Amino acid sequence: MRAHTEYLVMNTRKRHELVNITEQIADIVRRAAIGEGMCLVSAMHITAGIWVNDEEDGLKTDFMEWLDQLAPARPDYRHHQTGEDNADAHLKRTLVHHQVILPVTNGALDLGPWEQVFYTEFDGRRKKRIVVKVLGE
Amino acid sequence: MRAHTEYLVMNTRKRHELVNITEQIADIVRRAAIGEGMCLVSAMHITAGIWVNDEEDGLKTDFMEWLDQLAPARPDYRHHQTGEDNADAHLKRTLVHHQVILPVTNGALDLGPWEQVFYTEFDGRRKKRIVVKVLGE
Amino acid sequence: MRAHTEYLVMNTRKRHELVNITEQIADIVRRAAIGEGMCLVSAMHITAGIWVNDEEDGLKTDFMEWLDQLAPARPDYRHHQTGEDNADAHLKRTLVHHQVILPVTNGALDLGPWEQVFYTEFDGRRKKRIVVKVLGE
Repeated sequence: MRAHTEYLVMNTRKRHELVNITEQIADIVRRAAIGEGMCLVSAMHITAGIWVNDEEDGLKTDFMEWLDQLAPARPDYRHHQTGEDNADAHLKRTLVHHQVILPVTNGALDLGPWEQVFYTEFDGRRKKRIVVKVLGE
Repeated sequence: MRAHTEYLVMNTRKRHELVNITEQIADIVRRAAIGEGMCLVSAMHITAGIWVNDEEDGLKTDFMEWLDQLAPARPDYRHHQTGEDNADAHLKRTLVHHQVILPVTNGALDLGPWEQVFYTEFDGRRKKRIVVKVLGE
Repeated sequence: MRAHTEYLVMNTRKRHELVNITEQIADIVRRAAIGEGMCLVSAMHITAGIWVNDEEDGLKTDFMEWLDQLAPARPDYRHHQTGEDNADAHLKRTLVHHQVILPVTNGALDLGPWEQVFYTEFDGRRKKRIVVKVLGE
């Protein structure tokens, strides 16, 4: 069994941002030199997530607006009594989920025809990490 | 370490459908001949998901109606400017999540007393794949 | 490759409860004696989930209230025609998701600075199990 771990550092210019990281993950899987296995991609900060969906601008805008309807930014969250202002970001991370497992087959990511991997940032403009761990043989 | 990979091909008659795939997954785990490990079940198309919950008709109807309330089918999604009409299906997949990891213990699925595995289709009537990868020893 | 499996038994005093289980999971990972791997934490009952987020009282209250808005307890779910009264708990489990994979690096949980692991109970006051399986080498 082999394991290979790397960390991606994200620092978005905007507070809310979707970043396609599919190629970066594919590169890590190549460096892992693992033929058959699983690749965990997990946002290590609790106001960001990982989303596997479509690289289509309209849908990406729909998606971020929809998250804002289900988990709106509001001043009156209890969490804000600590001085924070990002409770909605914690809830949005929950809806998106903060991690995925990507199958690795024949040494490469085994994705569906339209599956792309996105980092979903809901409280950006600062450095955050994603852990990528490939396990297999 | 061993790895075993199979693909299930789904082709639902209805556009929205819940399909119980627990037995098919259990069969794959048996064929994998792995005693201790993890079994990834992941929908490879971005308008379908995987749900672990109860095989009870009332709840299944409640579940699909509730998803339709949180992510309604509407004409005015931006995604539909591409000619698509399934933006709600992308959002529903996100709520359900598109994958699960099932533990494998003593050569079999290690599920709770009521846990059943469902394929959740939100834009069906065409062939789609699920990847099932068992990793362990 | 090594595998190590334990089950946590939960029995909350309240029907709805968030229980921080980070230390219990860290202890299991230590007992697993695995240097590099993945740790699956999965709620085996279909009215409970696993959440990775912030140990902050205000946010935890916000989170539970917000789940109650998105998946309210109501008498008129179809599931209740079976005699059950917990359909909302099944839906809340879906929003939270019922499992996470925690990376194990250098023999310990590899969590972000604020990541804490919670058991989210939506229909408690009875014994339920969580499966924790560590796979690696």
